[in-house]
Amino acid sequence: MLALHGLGVSRGYAIGRAVVIGAAALEVSHYRIDEEEVEAECARLAAAIRAASDELAQLADHLPPDVPRELGAILQVHSMILADEMISLEPLEIIRSRHYNAEWALTAQGQALAEQFAQMDDEYMRERGGDVRQVIERILHALAEADGRPRGLKGSAIDAHGDPLIVVAHDISPADMLKLRGARFAAFTTDLGGATSHTAIVARSMGVPAVVALGAARTLLRDGDMVIVDGEAGVLLVNPPPRVVAEYRARQADYARERATLAMLRDVPAITLDGVVVSMLANIELPDEAQAAVDAGAEGIGLFRSEFLFMGRDDLPGEDEQYEAYASVVRTMAGRPVTIRTLDIGADKTLDGEATVATNPALGLRAIRYCLAHPELFATQLRAILRASAHGPVRILIPMVAHLREARASHAAIAAARQELDARGQPYGANVLVGAMVEIPAVAIAIEPFVEVFDFLSIGTNDLIQYTLAIDRADPDVASLYDALHPAVLRLVANTINAGARAGKPVSVCGEMAGDTELTRLLLGLGLTQFSMHPQQLLDVKREILQAHSNALRTKVAAVLNRASEMDLSLLNQ
Amino acid sequence: MLALHGLGVSRGYAIGRAVVIGAAALEVSHYRIDEEEVEAECARLAAAIRAASDELAQLADHLPPDVPRELGAILQVHSMILADEMISLEPLEIIRSRHYNAEWALTAQGQALAEQFAQMDDEYMRERGGDVRQVIERILHALAEADGRPRGLKGSAIDAHGDPLIVVAHDISPADMLKLRGARFAAFTTDLGGATSHTAIVARSMGVPAVVALGAARTLLRDGDMVIVDGEAGVLLVNPPPRVVAEYRARQADYARERATLAMLRDVPAITLDGVVVSMLANIELPDEAQAAVDAGAEGIGLFRSEFLFMGRDDLPGEDEQYEAYASVVRTMAGRPVTIRTLDIGADKTLDGEATVATNPALGLRAIRYCLAHPELFATQLRAILRASAHGPVRILIPMVAHLREARASHAAIAAARQELDARGQPYGANVLVGAMVEIPAVAIAIEPFVEVFDFLSIGTNDLIQYTLAIDRADPDVASLYDALHPAVLRLVANTINAGARAGKPVSVCGEMAGDTELTRLLLGLGLTQFSMHPQQLLDVKREILQAHSNALRTKVAAVLNRASEMDLSLLNQ
Repeated sequence: MLALHGLGVSRGYAIGRAVVIGAAALEVSHYRIDEEEVEAECARLAAAIRAASDELAQLADHLPPDVPRELGAILQVHSMILADEMISLEPLEIIRSRHYNAEWALTAQGQALAEQFAQMDDEYMRERGGDVRQVIERILHALAEADGRPRGLKGSAIDAHGDPLIVVAHDISPADMLKLRGARFAAFTTDLGGATSHTAIVARSMGVPAVVALGAARTLLRDGDMVIVDGEAGVLLVNPPPRVVAEYRARQADYARERATLAMLRDVPAITLDGVVVSMLANIELPDEAQAAVDAGAEGIGLFRSEFLFMGRDDLPGEDEQYEAYASVVRTMAGRPVTIRTLDIGADKTLDGEATVATNPALGLRAIRYCLAHPELFATQLRAILRASAHGPVRILIPMVAHLREARASHAAIAAARQELDARGQPYGANVLVGAMVEIPAVAIAIEPFVEVFDFLSIGTNDLIQYTLAIDRADPDVASLYDALHPAVLRLVANTINAGARAGKPVSVCGEMAGDTELTRLLLGLGLTQFSMHPQQLLDVKREILQAHSNALRTKVAAVLNRASEMDLSLLNQ
Repeated sequence: MLALHGLGVSRGYAIGRAVVIGAAALEVSHYRIDEEEVEAECARLAAAIRAASDELAQLADHLPPDVPRELGAILQVHSMILADEMISLEPLEIIRSRHYNAEWALTAQGQALAEQFAQMDDEYMRERGGDVRQVIERILHALAEADGRPRGLKGSAIDAHGDPLIVVAHDISPADMLKLRGARFAAFTTDLGGATSHTAIVARSMGVPAVVALGAARTLLRDGDMVIVDGEAGVLLVNPPPRVVAEYRARQADYARERATLAMLRDVPAITLDGVVVSMLANIELPDEAQAAVDAGAEGIGLFRSEFLFMGRDDLPGEDEQYEAYASVVRTMAGRPVTIRTLDIGADKTLDGEATVATNPALGLRAIRYCLAHPELFATQLRAILRASAHGPVRILIPMVAHLREARASHAAIAAARQELDARGQPYGANVLVGAMVEIPAVAIAIEPFVEVFDFLSIGTNDLIQYTLAIDRADPDVASLYDALHPAVLRLVANTINAGARAGKPVSVCGEMAGDTELTRLLLGLGLTQFSMHPQQLLDVKREILQAHSNALRTKVAAVLNRASEMDLSLLNQ
């Protein structure tokens, strides 16, 4: 039995047979063409781009009514990428200047774009490189089809031993997922991808397990191999012995029972055994996810990342477009608070006319630093958020604050946005609270003035851990050093929660720690009463809370917090 | 009067006339050649490379006896770069494949190399890109000379109004500095460069002021312009009015008097007015700097960066070569302790055979993380350091520790190195202390176990500030947010010093804060008794210490340390 370890991005278990999907880009032939063939090769590529574009438009026009709504949005992004000159013009240039064949020109350009995206500072934006790759795959398919050599998805016969089918791919485009739906795949695995890749988002919304970042799984498997996908552990097991299959069938059944039981907790308030009331909030990335938050019993949105509006486009979204997006979430949440984080991306720097990226983008001009350096962009977003607050309670969340003067500048920008709306006579909520992400160590260490100037705080444990330990978690060479239980991390979280409690200001945790049931008791012990997480995790965490005794945990955590060694979670279960 | 602001890298003032030195790379003509011209163009470039190589060898063979010894080492590095295929072969490939002329092919390759160097994770290594640029300049000069068009240094007539002459260059190679010495230049300024560029190192060792990173100064000045170089403020003043010249003549005189007075403090122990004894230690990068440390009265080397041995070469330095380098410093220091920091560089990662760099190298595999991932390299360095300890007191300093398990692994590697030397029968010191850099926030926050397992600690304030504030100081977009006085930074420094004091373990500061006389009283107030800095700064800081009352400062600092706002240094001067 072969066990491949990746990243579990959608929960659950699946047992079935592999459907191995080829990556067209990996099987492309490279050759040079003669000068007189250049224009014909350009025409061949242009025709394939048109064919790919037509196919995308067709798919978008005939979306089945029951597919996740994200898919439509993603198809649009792909159409935009296809129309961009980086795809529609530059490969033609490469054919003309370097005499590459169409497939080579396209993959060479794809390689260059992949490197550019890989160096973007924001994990979310980095993963958008996957969209570009998928669009290029689509054109490669069209080139192969025009040659009478259909490949990959369309060419692969669907195996059917009667077992559920599991997709094993290098990468899956959303459009391919649409085509794959009819076959009722039980799980998805990809060699590429990350926690916020489209494969992950779509698989979660379809409720099927998915494991991504498997490396070279696709090359190791054959169509029809028996596989088990463990979305919890992020593992793909190949040709498991009967004993392991039986074990996983039992886990599957347990999991199904557990989901059914958990669903009954949806409307149960999250109160510990000793009566501490906990707020259960949801993190979302796309407006459409608000409904999933409501369905999972979220009491509000603790973190609405606004980056989706800015992705995959050359221009900036206007105030009205942003307002519509924010307002749709506020309406869906129907009176529950919606916390909108202002733009958390960085800039690719332009130096001497050449586009370059910062050497250390995570330590560069990003989030509030970027917004304060681009006041018009910031003002536009703030007005859009304030206008959305006319439809229900809205909170503004400022990311990457490290200095008091950034806090003051943010408040000034919000006041100016209010004045502009007053001047226009446009309505906005009377009581829009303004909070800060606690994700830079400096703020968590010297928290007092920040508690004073903000209405609430939200601890972004992912970044806080990264900076506190000087680890880029996305860097595979050091990812193993990332450690949420390092005593330094826990002291910073405790310091922030305690400062909020003393000042009577709400403090939530919206990093991955909040959605990890292994850490629920620890966070309760640190005094946390606001948890914000992916909607899929809400009921699991709520169950932990319902079974916990908050004050007993606080006593235990206080006793070990200043110990030298790393936190031993088992102490909290005694 | 035009005032240009850069980075002051060597102290003092100079008033004189500009000698503007052209950058050949900026003035190069680009054109395409025909197929039949390719081999002739390749031969032209190859001849220029040989000419440049001969010239370097000549310079190296006839080094004047009184030049700083670093220059010889740097000329060797340049010869090695010139012989590397990135310079000797790849530009020829570009001529053949792209039909560029020799100058264009060379500058295109130079641009590509510059980008690679710019993305290296280590500031010191990043600046080595300057060596490559200077080598390319040298070849461009040779190409121009072969065409009968000598340019730049050799072509520029030396102006002589009777005033001292000041070099204003795009960049200065060490070889050019050798040629310039005869003219007794009073100062150097360059458009490029950083605090550890060769221009900086050499200017400091020559005792003349230098300002680098001036941007476009070279294009704004004309030969013979009257200029003032302010190495303290990092400013270049062009055509100053007589009033300003008079002011600077006064400053020059004051500065000379001050240096003379300070020199008298060389052998005075650094003791505060209330009797607190302070250790004055030096930071060095090259073995030759040890003498400067002794000359400035250093009581030991607080930080010997070992990266110089690994720079500008394809292979790794062997154990014997490292041993010789470390032992030479130990001998020069003649019984004073020498603290050798183990290798503090990161790796360019290789992914799918293509060399790429980490997205955030500062948060990646570097320093002790890199060394533990490359046990042979680490073991070799540890054995070399231990062998050097046979000649005098040596301390081993481990950079970038964040986890206790890294501390334990370091100790295990040192124990294994001792065993290996025992087995070989090679001698080493009986009492080599092992310390850790405190530069990752996690360690400064949860310091207790690290104080226990290490013999001493050295606070690397530069990195500690960067991580605590999530700022890359080398990134101009956010450099202004770098702030040594952020209360979070000061609390971490205080926490580390206090933990050391409680455990009876020495704690030094070796970051730039230690050499900044503005911060001496603050650091004394935080309880610091070991300062380590560039040899040039030792006497200034000692004077501050001699005038300070340590206990009064400790009381004042304690009173303001937990205040919300940033530290107001003026409070310490009341």
